[in-house]
Amino acid sequence: MSKLDNPVPAASGVTSRRMADAIRFLALDAIERAADGHPGAPLGGAEVATALFTRHLKCNPADPHWPDRDRFVLSNGHGSMLIYALLHLSGYAGMPIEQIRAFRELGSHTHGHPERDVDLGIEVTTGPLGQGIANAVGMAVAEAWLSATFGSEIVDHRTYALVGDGCLMEGVAHEVISLAGHLRLGKLCFLWDDNHMTDDGVTDFSISEDVRGRFRVAGWQVIDADGHDVEAVSAALLLANQDPRPTLIACRTLIGKGLPRLEDKRGAHGGRVFAEDLTEARAAAGWTAGPFEVPADVAQAWREGVDGRNHPAYVAWKARVAALPADKRALFERAQRGDLPEGVIEALAAQARAMAEAAPSQSTNQSTAEIVDLIAGLIPELLPGAPDLEGPTNCKRGLAAFTAADNSGRYIHYGIREHAMGSMMNGMVAHGGVLPLGATYLVFSDYMRPPLRMSALMELPVITIYSHDSIGIGKNGPTHQPVEYLASLRAMPNMAVFRPADAVETAECWEVALSRKHGPSSMICSRQALPTVRRDAGENKSARGAYVLVEGEGGARRVTLLATGSEVSVALAARALLQAEGVSTAVVSMPCWEVFEDQPEAYQAEVLGSGVVRIAVEAAVKLGWERWIGLEGGFVGMRGFGASGPGDQLFEHFGITAEAVAGAARARL
Amino acid sequence: MSKLDNPVPAASGVTSRRMADAIRFLALDAIERAADGHPGAPLGGAEVATALFTRHLKCNPADPHWPDRDRFVLSNGHGSMLIYALLHLSGYAGMPIEQIRAFRELGSHTHGHPERDVDLGIEVTTGPLGQGIANAVGMAVAEAWLSATFGSEIVDHRTYALVGDGCLMEGVAHEVISLAGHLRLGKLCFLWDDNHMTDDGVTDFSISEDVRGRFRVAGWQVIDADGHDVEAVSAALLLANQDPRPTLIACRTLIGKGLPRLEDKRGAHGGRVFAEDLTEARAAAGWTAGPFEVPADVAQAWREGVDGRNHPAYVAWKARVAALPADKRALFERAQRGDLPEGVIEALAAQARAMAEAAPSQSTNQSTAEIVDLIAGLIPELLPGAPDLEGPTNCKRGLAAFTAADNSGRYIHYGIREHAMGSMMNGMVAHGGVLPLGATYLVFSDYMRPPLRMSALMELPVITIYSHDSIGIGKNGPTHQPVEYLASLRAMPNMAVFRPADAVETAECWEVALSRKHGPSSMICSRQALPTVRRDAGENKSARGAYVLVEGEGGARRVTLLATGSEVSVALAARALLQAEGVSTAVVSMPCWEVFEDQPEAYQAEVLGSGVVRIAVEAAVKLGWERWIGLEGGFVGMRGFGASGPGDQLFEHFGITAEAVAGAARARL
Repeated sequence: MSKLDNPVPAASGVTSRRMADAIRFLALDAIERAADGHPGAPLGGAEVATALFTRHLKCNPADPHWPDRDRFVLSNGHGSMLIYALLHLSGYAGMPIEQIRAFRELGSHTHGHPERDVDLGIEVTTGPLGQGIANAVGMAVAEAWLSATFGSEIVDHRTYALVGDGCLMEGVAHEVISLAGHLRLGKLCFLWDDNHMTDDGVTDFSISEDVRGRFRVAGWQVIDADGHDVEAVSAALLLANQDPRPTLIACRTLIGKGLPRLEDKRGAHGGRVFAEDLTEARAAAGWTAGPFEVPADVAQAWREGVDGRNHPAYVAWKARVAALPADKRALFERAQRGDLPEGVIEALAAQARAMAEAAPSQSTNQSTAEIVDLIAGLIPELLPGAPDLEGPTNCKRGLAAFTAADNSGRYIHYGIREHAMGSMMNGMVAHGGVLPLGATYLVFSDYMRPPLRMSALMELPVITIYSHDSIGIGKNGPTHQPVEYLASLRAMPNMAVFRPADAVETAECWEVALSRKHGPSSMICSRQALPTVRRDAGENKSARGAYVLVEGEGGARRVTLLATGSEVSVALAARALLQAEGVSTAVVSMPCWEVFEDQPEAYQAEVLGSGVVRIAVEAAVKLGWERWIGLEGGFVGMRGFGASGPGDQLFEHFGITAEAVAGAARARL
Repeated sequence: MSKLDNPVPAASGVTSRRMADAIRFLALDAIERAADGHPGAPLGGAEVATALFTRHLKCNPADPHWPDRDRFVLSNGHGSMLIYALLHLSGYAGMPIEQIRAFRELGSHTHGHPERDVDLGIEVTTGPLGQGIANAVGMAVAEAWLSATFGSEIVDHRTYALVGDGCLMEGVAHEVISLAGHLRLGKLCFLWDDNHMTDDGVTDFSISEDVRGRFRVAGWQVIDADGHDVEAVSAALLLANQDPRPTLIACRTLIGKGLPRLEDKRGAHGGRVFAEDLTEARAAAGWTAGPFEVPADVAQAWREGVDGRNHPAYVAWKARVAALPADKRALFERAQRGDLPEGVIEALAAQARAMAEAAPSQSTNQSTAEIVDLIAGLIPELLPGAPDLEGPTNCKRGLAAFTAADNSGRYIHYGIREHAMGSMMNGMVAHGGVLPLGATYLVFSDYMRPPLRMSALMELPVITIYSHDSIGIGKNGPTHQPVEYLASLRAMPNMAVFRPADAVETAECWEVALSRKHGPSSMICSRQALPTVRRDAGENKSARGAYVLVEGEGGARRVTLLATGSEVSVALAARALLQAEGVSTAVVSMPCWEVFEDQPEAYQAEVLGSGVVRIAVEAAVKLGWERWIGLEGGFVGMRGFGASGPGDQLFEHFGITAEAVAGAARARL
């Protein structure tokens, strides 16, 4: 048990009930003023949050980025006024009372659901249920690895998530409950707002399983506590710290506690709060402070409970870091900043050159596996994982596993839990200090689409590798053949979708992806071997998103063939047919649309060609390609789902051939 | 216990071991010939499948569509040779030995993963893990409701799913395990291929939870059985039938059983099988039959075990149906065919007319809720459900809940389990006889994207209602504001995406969606009130996908404004601005792109206008709109994620206004 875990009593004369009521009335005043919001969770969770924040949570409101702070996740993000009230009472400078007043107004930081902003004390964006607790499990993995790697004097903090019934019904929750128990993430604690109520009414409508038992079978410690008793919750939090297992504290609460009209009622979840409700609630609580007013003694007690309690530990931690050997300290601080080690970009450039020279015929999946191998040797905080596809994605080589017994291992066995992986990677990147890499088949990206969206929304640089990217996988058939995924990933704002054509472009795309700081990347790879189409690697051409791979010959360009990934070589073969007929034809490789869209218009026009026939070829649906080919251009690709058969036969079967591409061009000349 | 549940002994002299080995050698021969496939599951599951098919499963290979057949789902679809061998041995005409020989060849029915084809005896397409068992839970719900409604003399069958470790790790599995236990689906049985092995190696790498305990806490009966002992599995199946709870039979098996080189090894999951392996396996089993050869006595025993055992029950069932009162029989048979009752289409047309007359200002979510109410009164087998969004989607009105105690209720409380809902609806529609309707917020469609894809691939007419479709939802903020979803749903082959503009189009779109027989529909609705833009409802204009809502006036059309849903009224306001300046401007409403794409080119050209400026407006990302506006057209919409604030302010903030649309047109005139 760490010395930080000792609960401190509330400051002189201020009862824990008043400290919790301060949350309640900030929440109620804000929700009433906004005429919108969810009162149920902040009212029901006020004591639980008070116990955690004023007695246990390690944080420093004056330094919200303190790497060794405990992480707090409000997984039931609709209860956002709970975290805003907590941050205000804790003294975060970014959360003054004006922000509380501006709850849900356009331009405020007090959004309908909490949005990641570490300056404010908000670790992750939450709202879509289940995401927050899965983020928390990722954070706990990051902490465990960092602690094992840098030592507990530098990294030794807990991860807490406040979770509602909704979070615990979602499938992703069960994936991470199972995995967290398996990995014995002992510094992880879920505080369950067990109020027996959801938006639809009593939980009995839809669940009768023994939730406590469900955690126990997964290897968790389970503690019951009266969720309206700060002492009881605090005592449970102490027990949580003393057990090597992750802990669920089942906090029995009343939804909307303190709001007489709605307390313990379905309507408390998201119902309107009116002025009369405030009058009634104030009378019931004996709360005499006005709207948005926190009595001075209560405010003081909160500051003492949060800042006063934690300050010595913060100072001591700073001293320990300062005393680290210079190289260890530099390594820790670099990883915390999320910077790459020196030499990574250079190594990737060298890899591109080597591949241009060697010109292998291999899958881009294999090229990516080699790069993961390469950078794993250069980036000590790189933590790859491929949910039950370690063999096909080949990205574990030489790395020990992160296990319950050895937290310094770097390969994460996620099990067959893609959704968990996606959400956990968000938590790991949000935590900082580690660089997770997830790998799965492209079709399974749908299983993790909710966290992909959250990574894009949070602007987290999460990189996921997707292999088996088209009908090229062959006999496994249409269930495993992506056709709509390039389009659906391209539809997501702030997601960079890379589909390299060969080993050279793969190295180039990795360089771009690893350099992205404010958004996720999808690295799309083939299962089948692809010829090397790039023989020059002096300049990272993929860094412009699209480029002329081969210009037309024999006069002004008449045709531009646009392609990505495995279809670049189809386009090259089509070009040969057209050039043989005297048609000057350029091939443009487009490994990343999003990057190309950011290029100057003049460059785009130069690459695409003006007044030429444009034909696109991609073994996927057309949606979006009109952006590049217009209404007059041609598209050779998929019109529906794939089929089961050898990959080369499928390209013929679906008409994705050089002849078809050349034919589409001829028809427009 | 039904009289059908008595196990029959294997036919004279043929041991159950040989009956199981017949599966093994068909699988091995096929996988070796295809040089591809997954031997682990068919070899490991041979005895389990033999016990089920020859002793318990109610089916009639000569009438694969028998409505009261038991449903069998191979949830671990990669083990597809197991089901193909089973269907061949059971005597399904569509699965002759030629098909087994053609395993994984292009054009065969023996695809890499099983693809739904009831003629062949394949109930659902499986492969993406977890989907199959969730389908099975949906089937069990359908059965329970039909049995309660039509009586157990007409509907009384079981649903079995063979599941692997992968299926049970996926989140969706936990959603349905919890819900199936809650609903006490006593005719549901999972047979767990408990082989301690996944593609990555031993299950210990990624799971240590007590799987049996996990089912028990959810209210399931759990039985252990030696998975290589047909008698033991058969006895467990008998116990399953005698318990009111759903049952998990944990069948301890060895992956790749009978293939000496790979038995109980990681490589058995999907490893190659060679000619020498066949020799070794034959020697070990004493199997003397040649490749693709089933000894006559074994074949005969299989036919007796399947067809012989079931024939009397089939004949008796036919007689009971024939004896039904004519109206009840007609109702049953109509629902089984998936036809709508008479009058539904007319009622929707009448609703469209009434709305055109009343011209309400209301959300299309409300318009849809009214339609669900209307058709629930006309379609007795309509079973709606909205995972914890019953209030916001308002589609329960007047319907009792389907509960453990009352299986005749029609409203399904899915809990906060969107993925389960999607996969269960696929199972319900695949089962037949019921018409589920799911409703949730559009952002949560990502949680159910894997089953949406499967419904599209299986060509199942599953309708899902998605409310809260844009920034128009306002203060809940970007986590709950879809911007990329219209594009990502439109990317999916065979998915019809409807986004009606008002109450009239809503009724029209429902008519189209309910008439679709071979693909899913997404009904996208606003939360905010929308004015009625259509005042005529004689003809279902939405049935053409897009149509001219208002033609340009004062000369030949110069501008076409294209819009969907809530932005149609923005386009109308922009038209007013342009017409006031003397610019002849048409507004085209496009409630369904997919339907419009199927129209004759001449109609498309007429609607879109030639040689005119085209401007599209949609509160979503642009991806795909170039299909209609080309490179020269304008687009007014979202460029990234939304924000938290009042909906009307957000439309201003993001520049989705009549002035912006008119300005985009002016700039191109």
